[in-house]
Order: sequence, then structure tokens, then C-alpha cells
Amino acid sequence: MSYVAPVREMLFTMKEIGGLDAVLAQPGHEEVTPDLVETILEEAGKFAAEVLAPLNQPGDRQGNRWDAGAVHTADGFKEAYASFCETGWNGMPASVDFGGQGMPTLLSTAVLEMWKSANMAFSLCQMLTLGAVEAIVHHGSEALKARYLPPMVEGRWTGTMNLTEPQAGSDLAALRAKAVREGDHYRISGTKIFITWGEHDMAENIVHLVLARLPDAPPGVKGISLFLVPKYLVGDDGRLGDRNDLTCASIEHKMGIRASATAVMSFGEGPGAIGYLLGEENQGLACMFTMMNHARLNVGLEGVAISERAYQQARGYALERVQGRTLVGDATIAGHPDVRRMLMDMKARTEAQRALAYFAAGWMDRAHGHPEAGPRRQAQSLVDLLIPVVKGWCTEGAQLVTATGVQVHGGMGFIEETGAAQHQRDARITTIYEGTTGIQANDLIGRKLARDGGTAMKGLLAQMRADANAVGHESDALLVDLHASLQRGVQALDEATDGLLGQAPREAAAAAVPYLWLAGTVIGGWLLTRAAVAATAQLDSGSDGEDFLAAKRVTALHFALHVMPHAAAWRDGVLRGAASTLGLTADQL
Amino acid sequence: MSYVAPVREMLFTMKEIGGLDAVLAQPGHEEVTPDLVETILEEAGKFAAEVLAPLNQPGDRQGNRWDAGAVHTADGFKEAYASFCETGWNGMPASVDFGGQGMPTLLSTAVLEMWKSANMAFSLCQMLTLGAVEAIVHHGSEALKARYLPPMVEGRWTGTMNLTEPQAGSDLAALRAKAVREGDHYRISGTKIFITWGEHDMAENIVHLVLARLPDAPPGVKGISLFLVPKYLVGDDGRLGDRNDLTCASIEHKMGIRASATAVMSFGEGPGAIGYLLGEENQGLACMFTMMNHARLNVGLEGVAISERAYQQARGYALERVQGRTLVGDATIAGHPDVRRMLMDMKARTEAQRALAYFAAGWMDRAHGHPEAGPRRQAQSLVDLLIPVVKGWCTEGAQLVTATGVQVHGGMGFIEETGAAQHQRDARITTIYEGTTGIQANDLIGRKLARDGGTAMKGLLAQMRADANAVGHESDALLVDLHASLQRGVQALDEATDGLLGQAPREAAAAAVPYLWLAGTVIGGWLLTRAAVAATAQLDSGSDGEDFLAAKRVTALHFALHVMPHAAAWRDGVLRGAASTLGLTADQL
Repeated sequence: MSYVAPVREMLFTMKEIGGLDAVLAQPGHEEVTPDLVETILEEAGKFAAEVLAPLNQPGDRQGNRWDAGAVHTADGFKEAYASFCETGWNGMPASVDFGGQGMPTLLSTAVLEMWKSANMAFSLCQMLTLGAVEAIVHHGSEALKARYLPPMVEGRWTGTMNLTEPQAGSDLAALRAKAVREGDHYRISGTKIFITWGEHDMAENIVHLVLARLPDAPPGVKGISLFLVPKYLVGDDGRLGDRNDLTCASIEHKMGIRASATAVMSFGEGPGAIGYLLGEENQGLACMFTMMNHARLNVGLEGVAISERAYQQARGYALERVQGRTLVGDATIAGHPDVRRMLMDMKARTEAQRALAYFAAGWMDRAHGHPEAGPRRQAQSLVDLLIPVVKGWCTEGAQLVTATGVQVHGGMGFIEETGAAQHQRDARITTIYEGTTGIQANDLIGRKLARDGGTAMKGLLAQMRADANAVGHESDALLVDLHASLQRGVQALDEATDGLLGQAPREAAAAAVPYLWLAGTVIGGWLLTRAAVAATAQLDSGSDGEDFLAAKRVTALHFALHVMPHAAAWRDGVLRGAASTLGLTADQL
Repeated sequence: MSYVAPVREMLFTMKEIGGLDAVLAQPGHEEVTPDLVETILEEAGKFAAEVLAPLNQPGDRQGNRWDAGAVHTADGFKEAYASFCETGWNGMPASVDFGGQGMPTLLSTAVLEMWKSANMAFSLCQMLTLGAVEAIVHHGSEALKARYLPPMVEGRWTGTMNLTEPQAGSDLAALRAKAVREGDHYRISGTKIFITWGEHDMAENIVHLVLARLPDAPPGVKGISLFLVPKYLVGDDGRLGDRNDLTCASIEHKMGIRASATAVMSFGEGPGAIGYLLGEENQGLACMFTMMNHARLNVGLEGVAISERAYQQARGYALERVQGRTLVGDATIAGHPDVRRMLMDMKARTEAQRALAYFAAGWMDRAHGHPEAGPRRQAQSLVDLLIPVVKGWCTEGAQLVTATGVQVHGGMGFIEETGAAQHQRDARITTIYEGTTGIQANDLIGRKLARDGGTAMKGLLAQMRADANAVGHESDALLVDLHASLQRGVQALDEATDGLLGQAPREAAAAAVPYLWLAGTVIGGWLLTRAAVAATAQLDSGSDGEDFLAAKRVTALHFALHVMPHAAAWRDGVLRGAASTLGLTADQL
């Protein structure tokens, strides 16, 4: 099933939810006109549909081939990547200082969504490279920046993130990789696992960012440093020199994203891999944190993107397949009320996820680029609160949406040729990497909620309650339903927030994930309500696209009637659930 | 990760929920003592753990090999199947008249659960064979019974079910396979797809049951007949003769259950495959219906079984893996409150599913074997009501449980070597085959609810309400919580039932699946409450196994606090949800 970028929906969400006008009015985006935004989305949509999407299923089937340390990517990937870089897509979100186009995060988010919908495995290479670029921009010396950033932005060199070790996954304190000082550089050794695009044949060089420990480092996370460790050493003239002392020991056999090699990397089997410090010694975790919001937004976005792709696939099948006597007019299975229910569920969840992700992206732009410090700080505190919800809730939602996508296909969904199963398999990693849902939820209730006594969340709740109680829509029965549903949702989140703030750490930790689901559901429903109000205003003013705008209203209603009512159930689980969650001994499990 | 049959839990559920004592007191089970039941479970558990479970992952990896119409099963399957038949497990549930042991359905259900937990792909071969045996017992001539049943019960020959065609999946009315009369037999031609164990190398013969249409048959489902079509023709002396005119054209590349070949079967490329009528001409669908309750119970049981296996795998990992500073005492990740939450969710859902499946199985035994006609009829009407809930709810629950199982493993869950991903992939088919969840839900609200004006459901609701309002537990805070939760659940199901009965067909069809989830949740929570009450009584009387019994109580509480509260949300969706579900035109999707 082909992919068509939902440009209209993206533009609507960028404008009405993401605050596109406000973002473009900020200094530095003078040349980014609304017309340019639309042109970029359309061109990116073409590239995604024509070049990346056709490689998605063949890439899954063929996977990567490891051969004596080299990794051969699936047919067509090398050429697609070359074309991706040539046309400038790779560096688009990066700063103009190093060859990028400095586009707002809100716009690059929409474009990234397209790459991820079209070919999630492929998209990871750029995502990791841009993450490494961000780290080097913030923490690299001028010399490192000058030497590494231009080819990385261009895409001739790619980047990776080497965090995990067999005994150190979510717990980076357990990390053992070693770094030893040697003149102006360090010698790195150790084994890293789960390194996405850790080795491949699409680029001239691979720039590994590696977390490791100095011999005299303090224990735990306060003793971790971040190093830049290139596959090939780079001369002063920027030319590639000797191979560094690192190899790809093997690649994993995974449930999904099979076209992206997940490498076991071995550093320093010889004299030690040469690495260069980023940031200060023992400040590696802080360096990682500067990238974290973008990285987590982008993985949350994968939830949106794979949900969109699964929805398009299911909708396409449902509108073609004829089976049985239908009740809703259509001759195809889309005329069966339960198939319609599944499609509406997928559509409503996908649009709520997108609204949440773009909302956060728009506030990231303001946190970064608003001309005044006060609004920047306020925006940043909202972003910090939202990020774990974006990452956790959009990816958890993608599990449901992609599973439902398989279900719409009936027996054909279980057959790999159909393509629906791949979306579910690909989506499976998104609740795990870049911090599991549990990690996101602990971040939400700890650093983002308890640390400020709930101030940021209470501010958001006040904003949502004001919207829920807004007057002026009483003659519109659908909007009345939306607002009533939102009021109940906000109430549930408010009560759960108060309850959580009063709980002991272990009770709160037991409630963290249900609280995250609750928060995502209420914020998602709020933003869909905003979208429906905006669509109503556009309909009233006679805007183009009546079908699209009317659908926005009904889609919001679907979320309000079918998803939002679960908010009360999660509240109950948050308030009282620890009694059973923590009620058994390990032996009783 | 190895599998250990949960014999204690099974026995408890058979006795306290399935009504084992009442079942064994029925005529015909005089020799089945409680001791024998326990011995059978223990022996089956050993076979499952020692022979079948070790082949599960290798079978998934290797899959089947198709070669010019022959299908070669994965290494070890042939030998395991031979041993399975030799030890008498294959025919255990079948009638003693044809070489089986005539065990009650309640007992064979527990044993089948073990085969399915240990190796779901393997278990399907026996399941299909027993289904075919049941059809032949009910609808075959004496000659066909005498010739086919003994070797099928023994397992030397296996059985299949040939229903689906490319254009006829859920809608059997669209079926095109042809049957032409020729003396005492028929000539069958046509293509059938999705034929589980349709071709393989483990048995001497394969007995296909095939739905086809006579030339003068009425259109639609009233013109379908059922035929027995053997791979090798069978002489009067029972010896195998010529190959019949049927071939396996190809096998599918599937998301899961990869060790079981899913065949495309081609009948009658030559003179037509020789087939023998089962039942009457044009009564094929009615013949299928006689098998349907068992078949659907058994697929519902797959939900239980794969949930159990995923739970054991996740528990095992969580109790071994050390990562991070924990809050609940254990040094392993089981000491993280959110990991504990995931394990409790898996455990509570799995036990609720098992309670529901065994409850239905126990009533099937009474519908079949109660000495009086009145109780038989009453039992049958309860079974008819329950079956779509067992099939739909246990398999939908397995999607959640197996996905959570992957999540507990973090990054390792996404790596196929770990084994957790296979359980999720294997579980994926269970909500689809033997009637999708949508088909089950339509059966529930149509044939099982609307047709009798809700009488059977109201009877069940009265029983549940009586339990929820039972007095005598007021000094036990946990039981008070359970009963309060159950009261709210019963109220929600009652209101949804009334609402649904008043809805127009398309609105009701739009609400059918949420209604099924609601019904499963409330009935499941009810049965766990019963289990907790029974466990409390056993604790009070000083029975063995205090840990197990105390855990039963806490597990029921977990369901009551975390799952049951969603009942109200589904009720809301049932009562008002069609407005959005059916609110868009196909163009607006």
C-alpha cells in the first residue's frame, strides 16, 4: 500500500495547534513564508512517497547482511540515501551555520513525520545523525565542529549514539566502557549494544558518540563522559585517514525496523579507539540531556508516523475489499459498522497524537527562539512537562493503532505480504528505545511534576479548564459534547495530579504509567477539541475543504465519546491502585 | 525461557470456577477421580515442558519448507508428533467409541491449554484434527466413521478445515468451490486459502473437510455442503490408495505461528477430488455450527495459553535481570514498581481469561452430560452466550498481555532470540481466525442477545449481582473492595445491555465490540471475585498453599482496581458512541 503525505492535515495542525504563525513571526524565520512551508511539505511528501515508501517492505524482508564487520544495507537504500542527501533533506533541520537550513522545529517535525511514515527504518539514520550534530553543536570544541559538522549535516558522514551496554540499559549508572587520557584525545574501549545504524555502507564515515568512564571518575552517573569516536580518523585537512580501533561485532535479529542495522559495537580491541571529549569530563549525562527533548519528541513522532501509515493502509484496504452485506451504505467492508469503528479509532488516535507532538514542537520553537526571556522560560517549562507525555503516549497509542490496522485486514493482516503486520512490528520498538514508557512516566511524575510541586501541570490544567468551560458554543450540540467530555477529563487529571503529589515514592512510581496515559488522553482530547473549534470557525467563514473540516469535528467527537471516558478509570488506578500493584512478594508472582 | 504448567492454578480454577466436582459427578465419568485429574495434568505438564516447549522457538525460526507440493515441517516436529500420538495425548478428548478417552471438556481444556502454551503452532494440528473428528462423529455415515475416526483419533491421520476462499473470508455466502455428484461420492474443485496444517509430513494421511457448492444449490449460505476429502483415498480395508486430486499450491509467509504451515489448497485440477458428503446436501453451514462452540472455546483458550506463556517469560526475566536502584525490595527489576505493575496486569488478565474459559468449559460438560434435560438446556443457553465472549475477550486480552510481556524485557524484548516477541506475533492471529472479534461481537449482540430479548444475559447479570451483593465479607476490606468494584461493573453491563437492546441494527453493530469487551471484563472480574472468596475460605480453614491463596486475593483486587473501572467507559461508548463511529462518509475517512 502506498503512502500519501497528509499535507492538508499537517498544515491544519501546524497552524491551529502548533502555533505556526507565532513561530514564523520569531526572529530568524523571516524568509520562511506560509507558502514556502506548504511547498516544502509538498516536496517532502513527494520524496517520501516516491523514493522512501517503496523501499519499506523490501527493506523489511531483506534486512541487513553482516559480513566480517561490514554491514550491507538492503537493495536501494544506498541510492535512496544519496538522493536524500543530494536534495538537501538530510540537513534541513540543522543550523545554517553548518550547512543546514535552520527550519523551525515545527516544520521539520512535520517533514520528519513523512520520512518515518514512509520508511521508519531508513529515517532512523538521519535522526541519529541529527542527534549527534546537536550534541557536537552544543558541546564540541570549535575544531571538532568545523571538522565534523559540515559532512554530517550534508549526510556524507552519519552519526550514532552509543549508550547501552549488556548490563546497562535504562540504568546508565552501571556503564563500564573505559576512556583513558592520551594527549589531546582519549583511548576508548568497551562493548556497546543496540547501536542503531552503528555500521552500514551508505556513508563515507560514521561518527560514534560514546559514553564511557575515566579511570578516576566518580561512580554512578556522575562519572560518565561523552566522546566523539569516528570510524575513520579525520586529518586536519578533513580527509579520512586510518580506520579507528572499533568494529561491528554483529547485528541483531529483530522483531521490526529490520532494514536498520542494530549493531553490537566493540571499541578498543587493539590499542583503544581514539576519541575526543565532548563537553567536560564526567559531564556526559548532562550532554546527553541537552539532546533528550528533541530525541524523545522524534520517537514520539514515530508513534504518530507509523499510526498514520497503518491508518492509510487499513483505510485503503477497507475501501477496496468487498465482503458480506454491509449496513452503512458502502459496498466495501468500510460499510460494516465495526470496521468503521476500527478506522475511526485509528484516525482519532492518530490525529490526537499528531496534535500533541506538533503542539510540543511549536513550543520548542518558542522556548528556543522567542525574543524575550520570560516567555522562553515559560515555554521551556511547558516543553519539559510535555516531552515524556509525547514520547510515552504517542508510542503507546501506536501499539493500539497498528494492531487495529492488522485487524481491519482480517486474515490478510497476518500475511506479511500485505504489509500491515510490518507496521505493528516496526511500532513495537517505539515504547522501548529512547527510554521506555516506564522511564518516561517516572520522568513525568518526578522531574516534571514533583520537583515543581505540580506548578507546570496546574498551569496546563488551568488552560485546559478555561477551554473546557469556554462559552459561545452552546447552540452546537457536537461542541457541547466535546466540552462536556473535556471537563470530565480535566477533572480526572486534576484529581489524579493532586493524589499523586501526596503519594509516597513507591506508590507514585506504581501509578506513573497510568498517570501518563491519563495525561496524554486528556491533553490529546483537549487539542482535538481545539481543532474542532477551529474547524467550526473555518466552516462558518466558508473556508475551502468542507469535508476535511467537518471530519475534524466528528473525529474529535469520536475521541471524546470513546477514548476520553477511560480517563476516569486511569484516575481510579492512580489514586488507589498501588495496593494491588505492590501487594505480592516476588515468590507470589 | 522454559514453560512450567501452572497445575495448582489450573486445578484451583477447575474446582472453584469450572465446577469440577459437579462435572465429575455426571454419568460417564465414574472413573475420573480427582486424583486421576491431577495425575493427568502433571503428566501433560511434563510432556508440554519437555517435548513441545523446546521446539517452540526453533520452529518459529525455521518454519516450514514448501517443495513441489510437499511441506517439510521444522526439525523435531515429526518426532514430537509421533510421541504425542503414541502416548495417547492426541485422542484424549475424543469419544471412547473411536479410541479416545472421553475426558470431560473441562479437563481436556486444561490439557489443551498446556499444549498451546508450550507450542501454539504444534497444538493447532491436534486442534484441527479433533474438530474434524467432531464433525465426522456428528454428521458422517457409519461407514465414514468406522473408516476415518480411529486413525484420526490415534493421530496417524490429521484433519483440516477448508472454508476460506480468496473472495470468501468472514462471508461464507460468497463461497465458490464446486461439488458435482458422481455415484456414491462427489467431485470437488476449487481453491481454498488459510488452511492450517493443510499439508505436512507428520501423518500418513490428511483428511480435509471442505465446504463447497452443488450445481443446483440455492445461493448464499443455504447452498453450502460439507465434504470429507482425503489426501490419499482409503480402500474398504482401510488401506491408503491413490493420491486424491488435490495439492498444496503454496504456503504463506506469516507474522506468527510460523511452525504451522498455512496452505493454499487446490482441489480438482484434474478430474476433481473425490469427496464424501457429511450431513445433508446444502446443510454444510449447520454442520460447521455443531463444531463451532468447541472451536471457538479452543481459540479463546489460545488467548489464555499464550498469555500464560508470555507471563512466565516476563516473570522469569524480571526476577533475574538486575538494573537500577529498586523501590520494592527485590534487587532485580521486579523491584521496580512499574515492572511490578506490568507483571500484575499480565497475571490478573491471564487468570481472568482462564477463569472465563474454564467456566464455559465446565458448563459445556453440563450442557452435554447432565442427566436431566432442563439443566442441559439451561447450561447450553449459558454456553451459547459465553462462547463469543470467551473467544473475543480472551484473545483480545492476549494482545495486551503479550505486548506487555515484550515491554517488561525492555530492548531485549525486541530481539527475537529472547522469545518474548514470538509470543506477541503468535498471539496476533487469535483475534482473527475462527471468526474475528467483530464476528464474535455480532454473534453476541445478535444471535445471543437480541434473539432471546436479553433473557440469558439478564439471567447471568442476576447471578453476578447476587454475588456482588452477597453479605458476610464486610470485615474483610479486600473483599469489600472486590464487591464494590463488581457492583459497579455489573451496573455498567446492565445499562449497556438495556441500551443495546433498544438500538437500531447499525447502531448496535457499531457498539458490538465495545459491548463484548465490557461483558468479558465484568464476567472476568466476577469470576476472579468468586476465586478470591473461595481462596479466603480456604485460607480461613487452614488449607495448604497460603502464598498461592493470598495471591489469588491480591490478583483479583488488581483486576478490580485497574481493569474493571474501564467498564463504565465502554458502557458510555456503547450507549452513545455510534454518533461518531458512523458519522463520516467514506470520502471523509
